[in-house]
Amino acid sequence: MKHLLSPMDLSVEEIDELLDLANHIENHKEQYAHICDGKKLATLFYEPSTRTRLSFETAMLSLGGNVVGFASADSSSAAKGESVSDTIRIISCYADICAMRHPKEGAPMVASTKSSIPVINAGDGGHQHPTQTLTDLLTIRTLKGRLGNMTVGLCGDLKFGRTVHSLIHALVRYTGVRFVLISPRELRVPDYIRIDVLEENHIPYEEVENLEDAMAKLDVLYMTRVQKERFFNEEEYIRMKDCYILDKAKMALAGPDMLVLHPLPRVNEISVEVDDDPRAAYFRQVQYGVYARMALILTLLGLDHIVPRE
Amino acid sequence: MKHLLSPMDLSVEEIDELLDLANHIENHKEQYAHICDGKKLATLFYEPSTRTRLSFETAMLSLGGNVVGFASADSSSAAKGESVSDTIRIISCYADICAMRHPKEGAPMVASTKSSIPVINAGDGGHQHPTQTLTDLLTIRTLKGRLGNMTVGLCGDLKFGRTVHSLIHALVRYTGVRFVLISPRELRVPDYIRIDVLEENHIPYEEVENLEDAMAKLDVLYMTRVQKERFFNEEEYIRMKDCYILDKAKMALAGPDMLVLHPLPRVNEISVEVDDDPRAAYFRQVQYGVYARMALILTLLGLDHIVPRE
Amino acid sequence: MKHLLSPMDLSVEEIDELLDLANHIENHKEQYAHICDGKKLATLFYEPSTRTRLSFETAMLSLGGNVVGFASADSSSAAKGESVSDTIRIISCYADICAMRHPKEGAPMVASTKSSIPVINAGDGGHQHPTQTLTDLLTIRTLKGRLGNMTVGLCGDLKFGRTVHSLIHALVRYTGVRFVLISPRELRVPDYIRIDVLEENHIPYEEVENLEDAMAKLDVLYMTRVQKERFFNEEEYIRMKDCYILDKAKMALAGPDMLVLHPLPRVNEISVEVDDDPRAAYFRQVQYGVYARMALILTLLGLDHIVPRE
Repeated sequence: MKHLLSPMDLSVEEIDELLDLANHIENHKEQYAHICDGKKLATLFYEPSTRTRLSFETAMLSLGGNVVGFASADSSSAAKGESVSDTIRIISCYADICAMRHPKEGAPMVASTKSSIPVINAGDGGHQHPTQTLTDLLTIRTLKGRLGNMTVGLCGDLKFGRTVHSLIHALVRYTGVRFVLISPRELRVPDYIRIDVLEENHIPYEEVENLEDAMAKLDVLYMTRVQKERFFNEEEYIRMKDCYILDKAKMALAGPDMLVLHPLPRVNEISVEVDDDPRAAYFRQVQYGVYARMALILTLLGLDHIVPRE
Repeated sequence: MKHLLSPMDLSVEEIDELLDLANHIENHKEQYAHICDGKKLATLFYEPSTRTRLSFETAMLSLGGNVVGFASADSSSAAKGESVSDTIRIISCYADICAMRHPKEGAPMVASTKSSIPVINAGDGGHQHPTQTLTDLLTIRTLKGRLGNMTVGLCGDLKFGRTVHSLIHALVRYTGVRFVLISPRELRVPDYIRIDVLEENHIPYEEVENLEDAMAKLDVLYMTRVQKERFFNEEEYIRMKDCYILDKAKMALAGPDMLVLHPLPRVNEISVEVDDDPRAAYFRQVQYGVYARMALILTLLGLDHIVPRE
Repeated sequence: MKHLLSPMDLSVEEIDELLDLANHIENHKEQYAHICDGKKLATLFYEPSTRTRLSFETAMLSLGGNVVGFASADSSSAAKGESVSDTIRIISCYADICAMRHPKEGAPMVASTKSSIPVINAGDGGHQHPTQTLTDLLTIRTLKGRLGNMTVGLCGDLKFGRTVHSLIHALVRYTGVRFVLISPRELRVPDYIRIDVLEENHIPYEEVENLEDAMAKLDVLYMTRVQKERFFNEEEYIRMKDCYILDKAKMALAGPDMLVLHPLPRVNEISVEVDDDPRAAYFRQVQYGVYARMALILTLLGLDHIVPRE
């Protein structure tokens, strides 16, 4: 494993190892505090994303490493016409590993072909966001104790939401996973997910329009934002965006162990009154995102077996 | 003490302790160089402020800690509609303490209610800027040897200038403080300061329009900038901004021990010819700002008694 | 040596010492990894330049130091009207050394007069960029084994390209250097270089318009970008920019030891098909840029003789 461009770059075994490492880090932070002394992470964010960027930076600093980089394309050489291929060859002289977010799909892949350091795709357009998927898997596995044998509800914008697509791709590899796809008709999962992934793998699923009806069946409810920037039409956005709001009343319909996840940022698709419900896991998910990225950085740098685990 | 939102959050005793710690840091820097090893400060600047942001970052780095954050709202999740409450819950997973500057008054207060880490208000609109006040108090106490029994001149924009209001609030708690309020009539201190703070506390003060006449009486002259962004009217700004310029001629009217302070940045309200006057303390004030923030970070993290003081 | 404002601030002997130190760092990185513990570099970039900024930051982090700063003028106090002189006096309270890029020629010079810390000019308008010159010299000396007795081709925009001017200034001080100046007539080197530097120093040179004809004579080919921002006229830019493109066919005309350098970023003046040619040195040049800046930081901080060299 040299780069992480897509969640599908990792086998189930490699994911298991990564999540084991992340849980070990969670419980033995001090043993990892200096492993990356003298190492540098480059954060190349051609598109701003505070949460993801800071999660990577926090992960590297928590390992004792340092960070260089940029937070938006304006302050990068991209404005002078430099290609991603040239940028990564330059960054390879500065850093030991890099995380790249880019508005164009495939940019991290292009970078990886010219890079002499590991490249982590930190989100490329509507395409992939593998560290979010690792975060989601780590959160579910840690809090539920398993990744198979559960009913997962996916709610919101299932058409454009890349985190949802990646999570489906990742979960269909575990046994006994069922999906409830909760969305307006206009924002249903596209056929290249529904037919090519779900039906191809004989995964049980149902498509519903009503979040309330689905609640009782779910072990995990994965909420997503209706992302304004994915819409071409302002009116359509306004009509749809408030359809699927999770509130206390809907939470009352769910089981006592159902987990609520959300990739964040949320706008209003989860009411703040849900935040204090013990089943709300979306802020703990942020913390797991740091551990997942710490585990990934160590693995890509070949430092994943430095700390002995009993 | 968990957060610092307003200078009035601190009792006179707590301020004394903070300033004592800051002076100890000033004189024993090397003893503090690793106290925050492994700790992270988040700098959440929704509004750019290089000087304040770099002062916080310098403070944390000088304690051995690290920094994550953003320098403007453009590169933050705020652009995607995330609330300050959500952002602080996310940042609580990344950092051990945070400094927030926000254009909206009350934003750091809102953040503090959801935060699991100490929140420092690094300026919220025209409202508060408590670390500037701590800086001002540290500068005066260190260079004058006391905080009471003195005549303090406040000059410039006394209507909108938040640093002036905070400094008045802080100084009225010491005995023997008198104010000379030097401003154009249009930019006098508002009644909620003049009546509710000065008169309520029986603090002697006078309001004058002429900086020259006041010079001889002052132990401290606190100059402020006429901030363009506080004005609605360009013409009014241009008419007023040059009224109260401190130059060598005016300095000649002052006593040999009078100190000149300024929160910076200055535009032209202090002539550069004053910079080399030994009474000009505004650049030393910047250095005291770092020590004040170091002391504050240590105190909020509960590390203020780690280094033994004789 | 207190500041580095122009490549000409350094004598040939001082440059030799810097390059010796840079080569020692290259070969003994671990011995330098903690020399700047507790030191801070301020990167004051009033004009974005990712490559140069990250090179400085990488250099300081690789020495064990830390970095504070800003990546563009928008997020700095400059927007509030603060002068460079005031900014540097403030930064002097935060950092131990600073690198400044500014769109106005002379800004780093002005800063140096008020600074109590070493100021490195990281590019001021079309004026100077001394660390690029050090990088170029280090690359040539390391890969060719010498700085004199060679024919150096300079190709592209020789009128506005500051790196070319600085390199000529630097190389004329070594014996046996000859130049081939390859450019369109409109972008020839200006007289203050051609007459005042080349002819004044009796340096052999020729001016040609055809890159192909020059190839066979060259020991070093220094390519430069036709910088769009230096043109007033879009049409002229479009007509000229593709004239001097280095490709495999032209490389076939050069000797087996000719080096290709480029200050980067490149747009299309060097075809990517040249990247894998062993004579292409422009990405190695980036790595030498880090070592050159490490050597410079150590020298300006007076730490250049801490690590014993046999």
